[in-house]
Amino acid sequence: MTTDPTSPVPRAPENGGSVVISVDAMGGDRGPSVVVAGMAESAAKNPEIRFVVHGDEAQLRRLIARRKELSGRCDIRHMTGVVTMEDKPSQIVRKGNGTSMWSAIESVKTGEAGAAVSCGNTGALMALSMLRLRKLPGVNRPAIACLWPSKNPGGFNIMLDVGADIRADAPDLLQYALMGASYARNGMDIAEPRIGLLNVGTEEHKGRAELKQANELISAAAEAGNFRYVGFVEGGDLPSSRVDVIVTDGFTGNIALKTGEGTAKLVGEFLRQAFANSIMSKFAALLAMTSLKRLQKRIDPRRVNGGIFLGLNGTVIKSHGSADATGVSAAIKLAFQLTKSGFQDRLAARVAQSAATLPSGTESEGAAS
Amino acid sequence: MTTDPTSPVPRAPENGGSVVISVDAMGGDRGPSVVVAGMAESAAKNPEIRFVVHGDEAQLRRLIARRKELSGRCDIRHMTGVVTMEDKPSQIVRKGNGTSMWSAIESVKTGEAGAAVSCGNTGALMALSMLRLRKLPGVNRPAIACLWPSKNPGGFNIMLDVGADIRADAPDLLQYALMGASYARNGMDIAEPRIGLLNVGTEEHKGRAELKQANELISAAAEAGNFRYVGFVEGGDLPSSRVDVIVTDGFTGNIALKTGEGTAKLVGEFLRQAFANSIMSKFAALLAMTSLKRLQKRIDPRRVNGGIFLGLNGTVIKSHGSADATGVSAAIKLAFQLTKSGFQDRLAARVAQSAATLPSGTESEGAAS
Repeated sequence: MTTDPTSPVPRAPENGGSVVISVDAMGGDRGPSVVVAGMAESAAKNPEIRFVVHGDEAQLRRLIARRKELSGRCDIRHMTGVVTMEDKPSQIVRKGNGTSMWSAIESVKTGEAGAAVSCGNTGALMALSMLRLRKLPGVNRPAIACLWPSKNPGGFNIMLDVGADIRADAPDLLQYALMGASYARNGMDIAEPRIGLLNVGTEEHKGRAELKQANELISAAAEAGNFRYVGFVEGGDLPSSRVDVIVTDGFTGNIALKTGEGTAKLVGEFLRQAFANSIMSKFAALLAMTSLKRLQKRIDPRRVNGGIFLGLNGTVIKSHGSADATGVSAAIKLAFQLTKSGFQDRLAARVAQSAATLPSGTESEGAAS
Repeated sequence: MTTDPTSPVPRAPENGGSVVISVDAMGGDRGPSVVVAGMAESAAKNPEIRFVVHGDEAQLRRLIARRKELSGRCDIRHMTGVVTMEDKPSQIVRKGNGTSMWSAIESVKTGEAGAAVSCGNTGALMALSMLRLRKLPGVNRPAIACLWPSKNPGGFNIMLDVGADIRADAPDLLQYALMGASYARNGMDIAEPRIGLLNVGTEEHKGRAELKQANELISAAAEAGNFRYVGFVEGGDLPSSRVDVIVTDGFTGNIALKTGEGTAKLVGEFLRQAFANSIMSKFAALLAMTSLKRLQKRIDPRRVNGGIFLGLNGTVIKSHGSADATGVSAAIKLAFQLTKSGFQDRLAARVAQSAATLPSGTESEGAAS
């Protein structure tokens, strides 16, 4: 354990009212320089934030020294091990001790940081988070929730699970509904969130067997859970103002998330090409610059970078592996907001309360674990 | 059976070199007037096209009489039954005789039309198509293929299945790869199509068990099938130039399709809002009108309206239930092109040949049916 050479650093949130975020600097596709650049972006905008950074000390010390915004605000933990995108979660659970990812989660476990951020291997991050932080009582499968640009006043819908687990049976989907509602209420200030269950049609007889069962479970839990259940929704409803929270299994959610991102990116490229097409349209683009920038900001996937792991005893944010500095900064901002708002404690209370009111006979196959 | 009052009509493709398309006028969300408007759009652009139209005769006669482009080019089949969006496929299979949908498929079965188009209930249309046209030898689960705007030179990728069946095991996914390759080769003129299998990651150990097995089956079939297998692809690759054909089960494909459409629509709305924002940007939009229209055309989901049912003894096109006249016209255009190119016979030959070369032990559970 070493300290940023430039100055002594407060290590806990209590220290001077700052919020400490734990950052795994090593896992992303673009290496630690982009992660440190993202930290610098956050630090420049947010005087309250401080970091515990995990990874190769020499490298990190050099990168941090170049950013004056980070001066005196980083605590480096030297870790030589790196979890790669190719590592299997099962291997990492056995041999992950000593990696920057493990260490980043450890800082949340010990309480020295309010939340952890990593750009690394999602499966490994979830496996390590479950191993070290453990599941909240009443939760069978933790989920990853993401924000989805939408026509709602707040500008975003919540979707979960987007990749924590490729399976989800009906009671898991009910848990996702409860956790998603809690996140919407506490994190997005929506008093009575509207929940939808993702399916291939809105008719009650459509879809897989577990979806029909989940449809009944979620519907029955709505009143006690203080949310409104709108029933089945389709892919086209993800950005709609019909719902606030979309519930699905991690396989489907991951495909939908990446499809939406890919489509938005494609349209953005087509838009640029359209405006580059003639002198007239280039001139028009110049005139419309402010509007186009506003549009770009609205659909920029980097702005909503950061999947939240829900259902654990601690907050972990998964940033895109390919995130650039702005993307990393967005994930850090989310970690900061959630820590500052005390979200973790409120979610835990909500899940515990909901689990106690679950109808009997709806336990998951693996609920005993 | 009655005939358009305005003139005698050739009923078969052989008659005067015209191509006859069978149209179910009753099934869509917007009623027969929109379907007839779409037929008129197609007829105005395409002198070779003729129609057999199925539905309420009095209503259709009145709607068709209003469109001079359709004069003498429609043969009406009076059918009082209508398949609604709420009807279950199993009910329709038992009681569907006498509906406009049943009759529309019948025209393909008898050979009087080269292909059928319907805006109706997808599940019912597939069930009736399977019942009346029967599956091609060697095909276990027919699939619905759609076109997806992409960065490829042709402007589109093919994705299947997008909703014929919510399940698909590994041999089904192999069949989809073969049918998709055949469609890309014959319908889109791609000599050696590149096939990808949709998953939540590109690493070989990721995803569900049937995907790992399908990964091996498709890889092994690539050389004999005359396609290139690129392995697992993710949601973000759907519009990419990495692949020509994306293979997935009908549940995932349907979610991805509708998510992509919803995202493109949202970005389009945001774009309009951005340009309506100030006098300056309104002026800019005016200047950029041509470019913006080109963009709109490129991402307009109506242009790619029309899912193709692959794996049956006959061509059936499913148009969106909510398609407007332009959407219906796009689906009719696709039906026309496929009929004119003799696609159905070539696909049948390819599937028969491929089925004969399948490795042993890879039959589907239901392959005997």
